[in-house]
Amino acid sequence: MELISDCPSCNARVTTYKNPFPTADVVCIRENKVLLILRRNPPAGWALPGGFIDYGESAEDAAIRELREETGLVAGPLKLVGVYSKPGRDPRFHTLTVVYKSSATGDLQAGDDAAEACWFDLGALPDQIAFDHRQIISDAKRV
Amino acid sequence: MELISDCPSCNARVTTYKNPFPTADVVCIRENKVLLILRRNPPAGWALPGGFIDYGESAEDAAIRELREETGLVAGPLKLVGVYSKPGRDPRFHTLTVVYKSSATGDLQAGDDAAEACWFDLGALPDQIAFDHRQIISDAKRV
Repeated sequence: MELISDCPSCNARVTTYKNPFPTADVVCIRENKVLLILRRNPPAGWALPGGFIDYGESAEDAAIRELREETGLVAGPLKLVGVYSKPGRDPRFHTLTVVYKSSATGDLQAGDDAAEACWFDLGALPDQIAFDHRQIISDAKRV
Repeated sequence: MELISDCPSCNARVTTYKNPFPTADVVCIRENKVLLILRRNPPAGWALPGGFIDYGESAEDAAIRELREETGLVAGPLKLVGVYSKPGRDPRFHTLTVVYKSSATGDLQAGDDAAEACWFDLGALPDQIAFDHRQIISDAKRV
């Protein structure tokens, strides 16, 4: 999409291209529990570990990095769950997320954008889950 | 990734964020043939129908739109093949592509960024295939 925006320095109107922002999320399920993090930043709520894919980084590497940064855990082999890209799925702006399922080993320790990291029973998920992550968790059970 | 770039109007150094550019591609296979388009723009060669996902557009809608624009064909139900996001896969810049498999109906008519559109026997693909699309075609046969 061609986009007209303003230079923050001189306010000139310049033409740039804008695309959805790609992110990666990880669903870790074990013993009927799923790993969620409590977001430090809006939108509030619990969410799957994940975040923006850096330029020069693959989706898989971003998923592994975000899991480590937010939970201290090390991902095992990744399995693609799906791609979620409906324009309204993130209230801040348009994101496209690549979701992987993985095992996770190590000592649980919340970090980076995560205030807490916990395993929740799949039958007793918290009320406030951000984005479309409740649907993603449901889909991942079948993968 | 935080990125320092220059305003094209005043040359000020401004901080922006840069992520891989998300694209969508479609693999249509029927009667042991795959649908490819000849690219009008670099990099040269044959490729799967596809292109950039617009801001505000889902990956699925982008795949359907690009197939229609480049080949005149209408996609059937989409099935996710995979996500390909290795940094070197596109010689121009870092792209992350979401690949779907689909049927395609209608009258074949190359358009938009496609100079030609043809069905190629899977056993006799053209020598010059752009990006990692030869691998993607191979992967899609198993989906």
